[in-house]
Amino acid sequence: MSDPRGGQAELSSRPVDGPARALSVQPVLGLPEIRPGDDLAELISGRVELDDGDVVVVAQKVVSKAEGRVIRLDALDPSPPAVALAGDHDPRSVEAVLRESARLVRARAGFLIAETRHGYVCASAGVDASNATVLGELVLLPEDPDASAARIRERLVALTGRVVAVLVTDSFGRAWRQGTTDVAVGAAGLTVLLDLKGERDRVGYELQGTTIAVADEIAGAAELVMGKTAGIPAAVMRGLRHLAGDGRATDLVMPRDRDLFR
Amino acid sequence: MSDPRGGQAELSSRPVDGPARALSVQPVLGLPEIRPGDDLAELISGRVELDDGDVVVVAQKVVSKAEGRVIRLDALDPSPPAVALAGDHDPRSVEAVLRESARLVRARAGFLIAETRHGYVCASAGVDASNATVLGELVLLPEDPDASAARIRERLVALTGRVVAVLVTDSFGRAWRQGTTDVAVGAAGLTVLLDLKGERDRVGYELQGTTIAVADEIAGAAELVMGKTAGIPAAVMRGLRHLAGDGRATDLVMPRDRDLFR
Repeated sequence: MSDPRGGQAELSSRPVDGPARALSVQPVLGLPEIRPGDDLAELISGRVELDDGDVVVVAQKVVSKAEGRVIRLDALDPSPPAVALAGDHDPRSVEAVLRESARLVRARAGFLIAETRHGYVCASAGVDASNATVLGELVLLPEDPDASAARIRERLVALTGRVVAVLVTDSFGRAWRQGTTDVAVGAAGLTVLLDLKGERDRVGYELQGTTIAVADEIAGAAELVMGKTAGIPAAVMRGLRHLAGDGRATDLVMPRDRDLFR
Repeated sequence: MSDPRGGQAELSSRPVDGPARALSVQPVLGLPEIRPGDDLAELISGRVELDDGDVVVVAQKVVSKAEGRVIRLDALDPSPPAVALAGDHDPRSVEAVLRESARLVRARAGFLIAETRHGYVCASAGVDASNATVLGELVLLPEDPDASAARIRERLVALTGRVVAVLVTDSFGRAWRQGTTDVAVGAAGLTVLLDLKGERDRVGYELQGTTIAVADEIAGAAELVMGKTAGIPAAVMRGLRHLAGDGRATDLVMPRDRDLFR
């Protein structure tokens, strides 16, 4: 995650809260269907004018496709545990989920909530049949989504000369609340957790343990212009200059000793 | 949640996914410290030009203050359960949390995760000492945040003639992930859950069980310009015309029979 320009001169790294200015979130339109080996940074930077401080948000699905992290259902031979867990679902899909899982957190009638090797807890360990290139294919999470983000970022900076940040995002369900929100699974060039500890509010109350998962908030904002059926797998958020940093999305994983729900 | 203009003529209610246009998120600057009885809609509409389809996001903290949902620590007499649960924390704060809770979900050394009467699962049942008007005060969630949102919305529409939506938001922690993200605890005039069931992706795969918690994504986006220490308790998101609707934030609560983590 080195910065090819040797610094972040254009970015303020002062961890202040509240930019007090408008943000914009812009979809990247006209991207083609992504194939293994495609240069996402080139495809994106050819379709949108980037500026210093922009956060380029890229859907995990296209990052995985570019990296060849795709598996055909008919190449999967389900193990006995996969068959046992599948319920009415395709045991080959369940086999893919088990291979991508470090641990199952909950399992109910073919619906699996798993912890991935990266530490993310999500449905099906991030294995997904929607928006695959062809029917019968499953798309897996990148091997190392933070490294994916760093590679895309370095290439974007090289191509454009602009110091941008990159998030790789996916749609995760949540405990207790319905619906998915997009969250960061990979990050480069950005503060992912904004720690307000020690800052004081307007009456002098010292904020304790207040840490904001800004990368997840950016990911969710980008989803609002991306859309799962519209084929828009990337967006650019502009106006967040105060969030320069070098966090990784895996920093968002709750450490096991502090996790009350795993 | 009636619409004073007798319809939403300016808004498309077609539940399409992906607006394919830019969004903006703008902080509402210059709001004064909020006191009981203050007219938030008047204060906000006097500081920002609203347009049809705008989503006005208001921090729960100021909604609660305007509604007088504030309690003084020294008015609280801690019950034996509050004393037992407090650990190193102030048992009077714990007493306030217990009074606001329908049920405790987890309790560890004064850190309580509770289900509120509305069904929200969050730290301290939403009871918060930060950004109170004076030290020694606790701010509680509104009695009915969806009704709060509807009242603010009706007043904004009456004052401006613009058909806007309103979200009331709070910062909630999550299972498995570090940091808080802002989520919707009250909503009016907006789709809160965008159901893509039956829609097809580009290769014809029918999306199953894909529901996006767009209200929570909007809430998180607004947090990025609001800021806990900067005293900016409101923001406006523009460009989401496809999300007109009449969802309530309580629709976001996972029904108990589908909740694997409660």
